[in-house]
Amino acid sequence: MKPIKVGLLGIGTVGSGTFNVLKRNQEEITRRAGRSIEIAMVADLNIERARELTNGVAEVVNDANLVVNNPDIDIVIELIGGYGIAKDLVLKAIANGKHVVTANKALLATHGNEIFKAAQEKGVMVAFEAAVAGGIPIIKALREGLTANRIQWIAGIINGTTNFILSEMRDKGLDFGAVLKQAQALGYAEADPTFDIEGVDAAHKATIMASIAYGIPMQFDKAYVEGITKLEASDIRYAEDLGYRIKLLGITKRTPEGIELRVHPTLIPEKRLIANVEGAMNAVLVQGDAVGATLYYGKGAGAEPTASAVIADLVDITRLATADPEHRVPHLAFQPAAISDLPILPMAEIVTSYYLRMHVEDKPGVLADVTRILADLSISIDAMLQKEPGEGETRTDIIILTHQTKEKNIIAAIEKIEALATVTGSVIKLRLEELS
Amino acid sequence: MKPIKVGLLGIGTVGSGTFNVLKRNQEEITRRAGRSIEIAMVADLNIERARELTNGVAEVVNDANLVVNNPDIDIVIELIGGYGIAKDLVLKAIANGKHVVTANKALLATHGNEIFKAAQEKGVMVAFEAAVAGGIPIIKALREGLTANRIQWIAGIINGTTNFILSEMRDKGLDFGAVLKQAQALGYAEADPTFDIEGVDAAHKATIMASIAYGIPMQFDKAYVEGITKLEASDIRYAEDLGYRIKLLGITKRTPEGIELRVHPTLIPEKRLIANVEGAMNAVLVQGDAVGATLYYGKGAGAEPTASAVIADLVDITRLATADPEHRVPHLAFQPAAISDLPILPMAEIVTSYYLRMHVEDKPGVLADVTRILADLSISIDAMLQKEPGEGETRTDIIILTHQTKEKNIIAAIEKIEALATVTGSVIKLRLEELS
Repeated sequence: MKPIKVGLLGIGTVGSGTFNVLKRNQEEITRRAGRSIEIAMVADLNIERARELTNGVAEVVNDANLVVNNPDIDIVIELIGGYGIAKDLVLKAIANGKHVVTANKALLATHGNEIFKAAQEKGVMVAFEAAVAGGIPIIKALREGLTANRIQWIAGIINGTTNFILSEMRDKGLDFGAVLKQAQALGYAEADPTFDIEGVDAAHKATIMASIAYGIPMQFDKAYVEGITKLEASDIRYAEDLGYRIKLLGITKRTPEGIELRVHPTLIPEKRLIANVEGAMNAVLVQGDAVGATLYYGKGAGAEPTASAVIADLVDITRLATADPEHRVPHLAFQPAAISDLPILPMAEIVTSYYLRMHVEDKPGVLADVTRILADLSISIDAMLQKEPGEGETRTDIIILTHQTKEKNIIAAIEKIEALATVTGSVIKLRLEELS
Repeated sequence: MKPIKVGLLGIGTVGSGTFNVLKRNQEEITRRAGRSIEIAMVADLNIERARELTNGVAEVVNDANLVVNNPDIDIVIELIGGYGIAKDLVLKAIANGKHVVTANKALLATHGNEIFKAAQEKGVMVAFEAAVAGGIPIIKALREGLTANRIQWIAGIINGTTNFILSEMRDKGLDFGAVLKQAQALGYAEADPTFDIEGVDAAHKATIMASIAYGIPMQFDKAYVEGITKLEASDIRYAEDLGYRIKLLGITKRTPEGIELRVHPTLIPEKRLIANVEGAMNAVLVQGDAVGATLYYGKGAGAEPTASAVIADLVDITRLATADPEHRVPHLAFQPAAISDLPILPMAEIVTSYYLRMHVEDKPGVLADVTRILADLSISIDAMLQKEPGEGETRTDIIILTHQTKEKNIIAAIEKIEALATVTGSVIKLRLEELS
């Protein structure tokens, strides 16, 4: 089948991330989508940089109209941002019968109704997974995963900059201003951070989520927007004394009188999972009447996380628009002909870390014997715990955490440790995963 | 448009949950799917109970063959469980050209390859969101939301029974046997809990996730399966001393040599979000090369959470099979004609709890004045914190957490509190959400 041709408007951070991931994972993505997806054309005002980044693989132009008017282009990715040119180009692409993928929350929250109406009339898709919470597939969850539910409320940490600032304010007891400067130096906040710190970016995203959760038009103008600039370190401390964390939340709730739609710093009980989302991470908590609460967590920004969402939309459109109905989304996620025969490894070959507990005589030399056995098998020790023997006991427990090794090495080590005269009974073995 | 006719095989816990949610949220679901979805026929051996539950709305039969052979049925939901009859019926439904929705992980993990081959040849969909992690849309995330990524590993708490037992063992310092009995009494463990506590159920689910993450056939027979029955309370305690929690994880990893696929009790650092998933909740952590780590959390079992996943599959199939390609998944999640005009509430009308901080003179009567103002506006106090004045100071901070009230009441209260002679400056107001 001939490739899907994609035109990319704007090759900045997310654009180059999209270009790179699409190239790096081309084989994997084709196995899923059923046909190859290629960025055939790139428009950017910085034509030199665009040429460098695309390295001759795509046609590079400085006039985005050449992309949206090109009859060979199937899907247009809009990564220009803002409401002006971006809106014109999206509407032109739609008028030309092209599907559109965009990460532009500001555009959708303020002009989405007009854009979706045009797309509906023209029969094209407009996909926007990247507009909310970066790589977390929260749009898909709300639009498709939770369709059985009456959504009752959504509360999300949907701006990484402000969550980073709040985490630092809490960790270091610093005031807003000091942390903002540090965040800017680290690249977690932009030179002009107004949209982030005043809550506008979060409100754009909350507006989009409210729309697809309840089936209402985008109404950014009715959202209440309050940022974190006036937050004092003392309030973060007092909240903590009372068992709460302060997070900038985008909240939307269904009530009998209407929909609440608001962004503001919010105290939440520290025992909630979402209260423990730190640094630049995002998380969205959704309450549905059937499913209860579900939480979606991940990176809400950055080149490749956002690219992950942009490309998921490309694959969705490719699957929906080009396959026959019954084979549109492959049963096993990959196209049937693309199922691979990667072997499942036998357990002896897996690699992980281990917790070992052994019951030993409390006398010199025991630990030396045990560590020698581990060293001989190239198993290195990460941590150790030796308990005092109980009152009147001569034996005690030693617990060892190892670094990563093959399971067969651990099995060999355990056999040797159990053969030591100073060790009683079996060595208890548990596996340990850092999950980092 | 005429309704989609669904046949339900088995109306036990999940079946009746599906029936009830579909009925309760009929309007909402139709707005999303574009047409009505009706359970027209139910097969169950307990025909009396089935009649009672369906209350004359669906035709009730005791021979499931009547459902899978009925030409009026578009989609068959298989909720019988097990490998025997369930497999025959699913294959018959497919042979008769019906789409299938199933929650049967055991069936898919062991006979999935045969079932998906038959479905592929016949051109019907087999959807199974409910087979892994109940209401959490993890299958959709892996199959559609993360298609840009080379999935590197998945680690999931995908069995609620064992997670409940491990949480209780840790909280109460009890041994496995004691907690199992308690879990059975509470309904968190079945009378015969073997599949859960020996890790088999988790291994079925891990097998399914590995298949769709890497594009490999289902290979349950190659999974390593170790349960929690031999876990001792002392190991949970020692692990905790070292900064770890023990969870039963379903793990699958891509390595240069092949795929790891294993279920076993696992130590994980306590600071990871997934280490803090307690009780019967489920969570799946997925590492992709572009998106990084994303986490999906929610209820992994129960009538309505599982029904949420079953119905999401029904809506998916309805959207895919019955709309024209461009309008298949509505832009705003609801069909364009079904967008509603629910009002967005003005901020004065929203209801939440509040954190109030005020700077006051440290003398008798101040607190009485403040609490009187709150009481007069029917605002009740949840917690209070009064700091000692600093060395040589005569003023101090009072922090009050209120119960839920309308924002306009709080604004009125703040106006009155700020007018008190004993209160200096502005009252700081932050909103508080329990998110429970």
